[in-house]
Amino acid sequence: MDTPILPIQNDMEFCDEHREGVYKAIFERRDVRGQFKPDDVSDDVLSRILMAAHHAPSVGFMQPWDFMVIKSDEVKKNVHDIFQTAHNEAADMFDETRREIYRNLKLEGILESPINICITCDRDRSGPVVVGRTHMKTMDLYSSVCAVQNLWLAARAEGLGVGWVSIMNEAELKKALGIPKRITVIAYLCVGYVSHFYDKPELETAGWRPRLPIEELMHFDQWGHSEENTLMDQLKTGQSAAQAGKFLKDVL
Amino acid sequence: MDTPILPIQNDMEFCDEHREGVYKAIFERRDVRGQFKPDDVSDDVLSRILMAAHHAPSVGFMQPWDFMVIKSDEVKKNVHDIFQTAHNEAADMFDETRREIYRNLKLEGILESPINICITCDRDRSGPVVVGRTHMKTMDLYSSVCAVQNLWLAARAEGLGVGWVSIMNEAELKKALGIPKRITVIAYLCVGYVSHFYDKPELETAGWRPRLPIEELMHFDQWGHSEENTLMDQLKTGQSAAQAGKFLKDVL
Repeated sequence: MDTPILPIQNDMEFCDEHREGVYKAIFERRDVRGQFKPDDVSDDVLSRILMAAHHAPSVGFMQPWDFMVIKSDEVKKNVHDIFQTAHNEAADMFDETRREIYRNLKLEGILESPINICITCDRDRSGPVVVGRTHMKTMDLYSSVCAVQNLWLAARAEGLGVGWVSIMNEAELKKALGIPKRITVIAYLCVGYVSHFYDKPELETAGWRPRLPIEELMHFDQWGHSEENTLMDQLKTGQSAAQAGKFLKDVL
Repeated sequence: MDTPILPIQNDMEFCDEHREGVYKAIFERRDVRGQFKPDDVSDDVLSRILMAAHHAPSVGFMQPWDFMVIKSDEVKKNVHDIFQTAHNEAADMFDETRREIYRNLKLEGILESPINICITCDRDRSGPVVVGRTHMKTMDLYSSVCAVQNLWLAARAEGLGVGWVSIMNEAELKKALGIPKRITVIAYLCVGYVSHFYDKPELETAGWRPRLPIEELMHFDQWGHSEENTLMDQLKTGQSAAQAGKFLKDVL
């Protein structure tokens, strides 16, 4: 164990309310598509969720992200066109049974949400050799993804809905936003206040796919090694509670 | 705006304490390498942070992740050997000035942390055509990254440290853990209670790289378009407060 040689955090313990807040954000975060309200998002709220993104972990402290804030109706319209083209192409990839369901899914709120945010990754930001990226080359992309998830959770805590739109041709999107070729687009997000948050993910309620039983995703020491142990029991109890909307009340 | 046709969340507002908890986790989360204590992590705490991971967003509700819990000393030793080899290779990639600093950085706690967790991505989990992955092929990998970040933040709220070890050859790691070729390793995490959390990221304090000024990462409507506006002012104020450890107190 290290002796601390640098300044350390004084209040390392979370009180019950703080801990509960973290789980509440995690369990009540939703991918929002259809419930955006036109209400203005103030700059202080917007700055806080961007600061949350900027404090994501990053490989080699690279901070490879940039943040584009899009409010222009014209730019949003161009981006929406790019979505629409891709969405039509995507529909054709599903078999007939799913195609109709797919077509009826509401998958984005580009025009209705007051703010769009594009989060990118600049893979050259800190030179060719990056601590922690020497062997796993995608680590910098993953850092920018962590920034997305931080922003998403902070937004939920602020009562803001966020929807991640990924049905777009990246080259077209970059053209619409003037993003240089060397930059990778990680996420295009629709952000705004919402009329409501759904209890469960919409694809789950729509019967598209069920929540997988977490115990089937567990492996112990080696891939494929399952165990009957108290952790597995706790996970089953936890998942039942979460599915009943009682995780915070019964499991925390 | 949609009229809700499905069950919705009743308590969509966060109280101040809950909101504060989310930002506290985001700002006080650290990549932990050297401060692990051998103290046992109970199954109920472990199950909660795994449940947090399982409730990450996923493209097409694919839930492409698996969770491996590694406690075996033998397996950890094998993984540590893989790290050590890669770490030596990595050192040689840095120029002479940085090489010595790099060699002295403590970058993992594989053996000292009581629990290691490997999070993966099964790209075939829900068939070849996935809602939202039709045009951005890496979306499923990003879903598993969101699971990592959820686990990390929940762990911080539980007082657990987490360190992400990425200096490893993926093929070797898969061999050591018996992971099939078709599965992608996203993160190898060291998890345990800690003696302390540092105030700032270790690479920042060590002078390896500074925290970037967030206002230099902002773009408005088009890449490269900066603005002098109240959002930029708020961001500068926010970053000053965060650097002084006063974001929760002064900005929330």
